[in-house]
Amino acid sequence: MHFTIQRDAFVHSVQHVNKAVSSRTTIPILTGIKIEATNYGVTLTGSDSDISIETFIPASDGEKEYVTIKEEGSIVLQARFFAEIVKKLPGEEIEVAVQDQFATTLRSGSVVFNLNGLDPEEYPRLPQLDEDNHFQMPQNLLKDMVRQTVFAVSTQETRPVLTGVNLEGEESELICTATDSHRLAMRKASVETKTGAMSLSNVVIPGKSLNELNKVLEDSTELVDIIVTESQVLFKFENLLFFSRLLDGKYPVTKNMIPDHAKTELVLRTKELLSSLERALLLSREAKNNVINLKTMNNSEIEVSSVSAEVGKVTEKISCDTMEGEELRISFNGKNIMDALKVIDSETIKIRFTGAMSPFTVQPTDHDQMLHLFSPVRTY
Amino acid sequence: MHFTIQRDAFVHSVQHVNKAVSSRTTIPILTGIKIEATNYGVTLTGSDSDISIETFIPASDGEKEYVTIKEEGSIVLQARFFAEIVKKLPGEEIEVAVQDQFATTLRSGSVVFNLNGLDPEEYPRLPQLDEDNHFQMPQNLLKDMVRQTVFAVSTQETRPVLTGVNLEGEESELICTATDSHRLAMRKASVETKTGAMSLSNVVIPGKSLNELNKVLEDSTELVDIIVTESQVLFKFENLLFFSRLLDGKYPVTKNMIPDHAKTELVLRTKELLSSLERALLLSREAKNNVINLKTMNNSEIEVSSVSAEVGKVTEKISCDTMEGEELRISFNGKNIMDALKVIDSETIKIRFTGAMSPFTVQPTDHDQMLHLFSPVRTY
Repeated sequence: MHFTIQRDAFVHSVQHVNKAVSSRTTIPILTGIKIEATNYGVTLTGSDSDISIETFIPASDGEKEYVTIKEEGSIVLQARFFAEIVKKLPGEEIEVAVQDQFATTLRSGSVVFNLNGLDPEEYPRLPQLDEDNHFQMPQNLLKDMVRQTVFAVSTQETRPVLTGVNLEGEESELICTATDSHRLAMRKASVETKTGAMSLSNVVIPGKSLNELNKVLEDSTELVDIIVTESQVLFKFENLLFFSRLLDGKYPVTKNMIPDHAKTELVLRTKELLSSLERALLLSREAKNNVINLKTMNNSEIEVSSVSAEVGKVTEKISCDTMEGEELRISFNGKNIMDALKVIDSETIKIRFTGAMSPFTVQPTDHDQMLHLFSPVRTY
Repeated sequence: MHFTIQRDAFVHSVQHVNKAVSSRTTIPILTGIKIEATNYGVTLTGSDSDISIETFIPASDGEKEYVTIKEEGSIVLQARFFAEIVKKLPGEEIEVAVQDQFATTLRSGSVVFNLNGLDPEEYPRLPQLDEDNHFQMPQNLLKDMVRQTVFAVSTQETRPVLTGVNLEGEESELICTATDSHRLAMRKASVETKTGAMSLSNVVIPGKSLNELNKVLEDSTELVDIIVTESQVLFKFENLLFFSRLLDGKYPVTKNMIPDHAKTELVLRTKELLSSLERALLLSREAKNNVINLKTMNNSEIEVSSVSAEVGKVTEKISCDTMEGEELRISFNGKNIMDALKVIDSETIKIRFTGAMSPFTVQPTDHDQMLHLFSPVRTY
């Protein structure tokens, strides 16, 4: 293998595939990045066997030459060093050449790195996916859907299926749901299907995979192809393939959990409630339970308060845009509500309570594509 | 005690004194910040008994009213919460009032915090320093001198006196020196003395204190008063007092360590050598010793190289501005040289070698106020 490549394009691709590489893998070859050069361009692959990322740098995109191939071939180089090295090389071009015994030379400016490579034949092949279940959506919409749900996945391995985000799809509507059984985040969107009506059910993508995916996704309206099989999901965009395994197990049915009525309904400014919870959490964080109390007052105000026996207490009044229904005193995990408020991009939210001991919902007021559900905490 | 205060000025001061507070103190009262209100203004104090910081917010600076005192008095509030709370309060003004039993109310906008305070009588008094040894220099010069030496202090407690920076002063010249016995950083400057000729010797300020001092110093030419006593140093500037204890013990005489001749002398561009060392360290860091090799070549070039048995090797040529004297092969701790190059603000540096087994110096070419000394590592 022997080629020269534009440094910036190479660095960009290496950083992408490096996100899939884990230093804690038990499979030695997966500590490396696979580099494959053909006359069409250079393909890079990184994997931790749960996530695999493959990027392709074309020899030319018509406008610019990225790669000059002198000899086709492939090699695996230690990811940890290789990614740091290419970033720190001084020239605009990098020359990569493999000699005997996988010894590899990287040359740029007056710098020469001689690296010990690994046998590319040992590197596992990526799965070939059947493209039956196939739909599309813009990168920025996918990025939003992930951001607005993934924070709510469970971090505990007692119910592994809850550590992922569940995808359900019917006709052209996609629904993403995450829950740790104390709170639930749900986000809907319309997607484009290429193969007739989409039908997805119990497709659970690990939260960790989606967090890595979001680092690779850009705020662009370019379409992402999403291909789902029994055990794998593949996101395809802009010369990049992102594979993730799916979680086994039956995801709980969450539709029936969402109350269809409300006894008390508030409309509040999102940022005002968020700042108030941040202050209240300063004290309740100390008590380790993050409990915050909310009480409806006269004249459309609520009182937010929290107490720490050691430090003291905080009380604050917020005026609501509207308040309807019964009086209420309720306590909840303020950190959970704060997490949800941070991903709601709307200026105002609607909170619908069904009583002090029953779950309540938080939704943006300007669309119905998102819903957050919370269990209260018993204190009163 | 009862006063109202401008939020921004209060937050700024609280953040400063909070730098002296340690959560790991064994003296409970020192986990707090002392607040004292008099008709002149509000004084805040934080201390971990090694470092103490006192700031003063005047009632008015002639242009603007900062504080309105309703009742003089003092209180101690838990630093960890108090600093976070004032930062997150919503209004432009904060009202602080102490009731019975040190219970303290902070009020801002529609927010009320009730905090449990501590008895201000328990708070230790700051030392009163005799101002005999007293000199001045601009804040930005002091900040530079600290930054350019403190990185070289020892982090090991085997010789405690080496964990500090040594100050020597004669006439109007101040010399700061730090060494961990493998490398030495020295920086000189002219200072203004108020009390005739300055005479400082073996004044060793803990590196940790100077790092905290540098977070408080600003890039301004305003003068700092520096007062030195037997066991304490005090930096006075802009309504702020910064006290540090001094280290006991005899600081080694370092003057004679610096070679007065050179066998090989190189002039190099600082940034070029720095980038080169960064690349070489990618491999030698793996070998855990940070060893980098340097070899003079013909035609005024040097070769920088490093090797990791596991990963590979890197070789790179750098052309010198000038090269004089004998041929040389030498090995050194590249991380130490890099630390020094990062604090040299000059574009070019002079390296003076006295042989492969002897200490060598690195200096800026445009002034003689700074010198770095290094021991080589035996490899060849």
